[in-house]
Amino acid sequence: MTLRISERGRRMPASPIRKLMPLAEEAKRQGVRVYHLNIGQPDLETPASMRAKLASAPSIYAYSPSAGTADCLATLRGYYRRLGLELAEDEIIATTGGSEAILFAMMACANEGDEVLLPEPFYTNYVAFATMAGLRLVALRTRGEDGFHLPPLAEWEAALGPRTRLVVLCNPNNPTGTVYRRDELDALAEFCRRHGLFLVADEVYREFVYDGREATSVLGLPGCEEIAVVVDSLSKRYSACGIRLGCLATRNREVYGACLRMAQGRLSPPGLAQLVATGAAELGPEYTAGVVAEYEARRDVLFRGLGEIPGVFLRKPEGAFYFVARLPVEDGEDFAAWLLKEFRHEGATVMVAPAQGFYATPGLGHDEVRIAYVLKKDDLQAAVRILARAIPAYREARAPGAVGATRADR
Amino acid sequence: MTLRISERGRRMPASPIRKLMPLAEEAKRQGVRVYHLNIGQPDLETPASMRAKLASAPSIYAYSPSAGTADCLATLRGYYRRLGLELAEDEIIATTGGSEAILFAMMACANEGDEVLLPEPFYTNYVAFATMAGLRLVALRTRGEDGFHLPPLAEWEAALGPRTRLVVLCNPNNPTGTVYRRDELDALAEFCRRHGLFLVADEVYREFVYDGREATSVLGLPGCEEIAVVVDSLSKRYSACGIRLGCLATRNREVYGACLRMAQGRLSPPGLAQLVATGAAELGPEYTAGVVAEYEARRDVLFRGLGEIPGVFLRKPEGAFYFVARLPVEDGEDFAAWLLKEFRHEGATVMVAPAQGFYATPGLGHDEVRIAYVLKKDDLQAAVRILARAIPAYREARAPGAVGATRADR
Repeated sequence: MTLRISERGRRMPASPIRKLMPLAEEAKRQGVRVYHLNIGQPDLETPASMRAKLASAPSIYAYSPSAGTADCLATLRGYYRRLGLELAEDEIIATTGGSEAILFAMMACANEGDEVLLPEPFYTNYVAFATMAGLRLVALRTRGEDGFHLPPLAEWEAALGPRTRLVVLCNPNNPTGTVYRRDELDALAEFCRRHGLFLVADEVYREFVYDGREATSVLGLPGCEEIAVVVDSLSKRYSACGIRLGCLATRNREVYGACLRMAQGRLSPPGLAQLVATGAAELGPEYTAGVVAEYEARRDVLFRGLGEIPGVFLRKPEGAFYFVARLPVEDGEDFAAWLLKEFRHEGATVMVAPAQGFYATPGLGHDEVRIAYVLKKDDLQAAVRILARAIPAYREARAPGAVGATRADR
Repeated sequence: MTLRISERGRRMPASPIRKLMPLAEEAKRQGVRVYHLNIGQPDLETPASMRAKLASAPSIYAYSPSAGTADCLATLRGYYRRLGLELAEDEIIATTGGSEAILFAMMACANEGDEVLLPEPFYTNYVAFATMAGLRLVALRTRGEDGFHLPPLAEWEAALGPRTRLVVLCNPNNPTGTVYRRDELDALAEFCRRHGLFLVADEVYREFVYDGREATSVLGLPGCEEIAVVVDSLSKRYSACGIRLGCLATRNREVYGACLRMAQGRLSPPGLAQLVATGAAELGPEYTAGVVAEYEARRDVLFRGLGEIPGVFLRKPEGAFYFVARLPVEDGEDFAAWLLKEFRHEGATVMVAPAQGFYATPGLGHDEVRIAYVLKKDDLQAAVRILARAIPAYREARAPGAVGATRADR
């Protein structure tokens, strides 16, 4: 008998961000400095108050309750209380990163073969979770000219099908940096309520809003108790991506129950991560304010710098620490590979994430890249200088009739 | 519109082990000491060499590679090498506990609606992962009289259907304590090969084998390169359940690829856990030998003690740190609840796991309980003394015509 893996196993997408990694590693082996604008791994230290908690680790690293330790849950609930969102003990579950929370939410809200509506471009790993959950993503296009804000309701209505079960919204948005306005959220929530859809909001970048904006949690929208499921993570908020701690919060009893039972299946969230998380309780508002000010300054460096490069289009990013920029190139993937393989300026190059991987609709995003601004300002300035030289050089190299105008191997 | 959660969300099973927990907590509130024979949380310290690694945690808790850090993977591969199993770098993935490894394996090997063959009683959380993966568990009964060894091949053949895709085997077995003999494994592997089935082996209790036995890994079975997928965990081996670190090992390229892509979706396994795991490289064979000798002695205390209680039936457990014992009771769940609610001996009682939850077939296991021997010998002896008194007392309380012979509320 021949042995075949599952269809869903074959369909599982390779990470489009990570597949350029071998090229970056090869460049580094050659001594080239690579500025990583491709991933959202902040360079800020994990707060000392959180790291200090490891000193109190017990001598037996035991299972915790499936929903999280009492201390960890109290810290998470205290955080939400400061946002004005009271969550009962049985409305929040500590998860293994935001990743597990989104998988739990998808599985609790929809069955295999059901559909999810979401704006594109979207966080590319949603495809992985949807594939695991057997869900089909139905993407609604958003456009850079509109700052990637939500399409009008008529488009949502048109995308609705008999198997639509939920909407997934990342707010503030990865990859676009869009912060949805209250009126957009109210209209979307009303649409969900009218059609019996869950509204799953990935709010891991909640604090990262600029120019005086505020991010609205779906947990705070009136009349959304039944439909709202929040996916959250400590990764970005506290520069603690590697611990893998997030949470799922919902006031829907059935969704909570189903997610808790999934949590029981995997026994407990990571214990040392939960211990570290309790250290967040000691961080005052000045911690977040400082971090956000730093990211806002970084955004400004890139927005100003890239905006001055001829042919580059981007609206001012509103939140998170990403944006999607349109470049004067035909194929962002080829450009990203070329940067790593062929372009050097003062011994350095830049890695960007081609935006194709953030779209479900084939053909979209080919002339766009996602830029993350998680590096120090000096490094971002250096990256801008490199891109300002690289873009015209690439156009020249790829111009019809240019020497070596074949596309780089991918 | 009414909002309904998914069918699979509704079907997600509550943990049968954890649902008696409120009764245990209530007993403790009353000042009663509860000996936990119900869960596999060892009371041994996590090795100091592993805990010491936390001191070298970096100041940024960053994402790791999706398959695990180079150091963590080197430690895992070194461990397998000492077992005589050479694994290439791209044959092993660090996972968030064995739990994630089993979910990945199920999803990579089978599609929604496909079937899994496995002996029952089985580790109850397989139901949770199968429900998440949309798989149907088809259980083959094993019996205490046979030491819960595998049923004859004719029964496997009879259970086979057009949608059977894999066999899941836990070896050494939780909950039965059975260590499968080489001839059983060879026959089962041959059955899998003949019918094009994957053989997913949960080998997290590999070291815990007694009376000179050896546990055979399916990775070492000749001709099984394509079918063998091993699920492993550091939880029990190093008394480090809470860190949530395990691995998936396979030589099947497609299964590895699909699981790696799932791993990329969730970004990385827990970072502090991976750091702690590298400390295992400093543990010599005397560490494992000492731990196993301790568990063997604990097993002996319980096997001898329980075997002397009239009406109790069990064969000598061969491995892991559990066994399933038949008790002279009609309903193990009622008995377990009664122990927590009504029975006290010298201010203490015992918590056991009713075995019903470990069977897929309704009606099986009602007179059995799973016993874990992860407590110190003194505590186990105290637990035996309690059970020796509790079992006749329960029989008397539940005897027809006895005062208060109604079943306890559940």
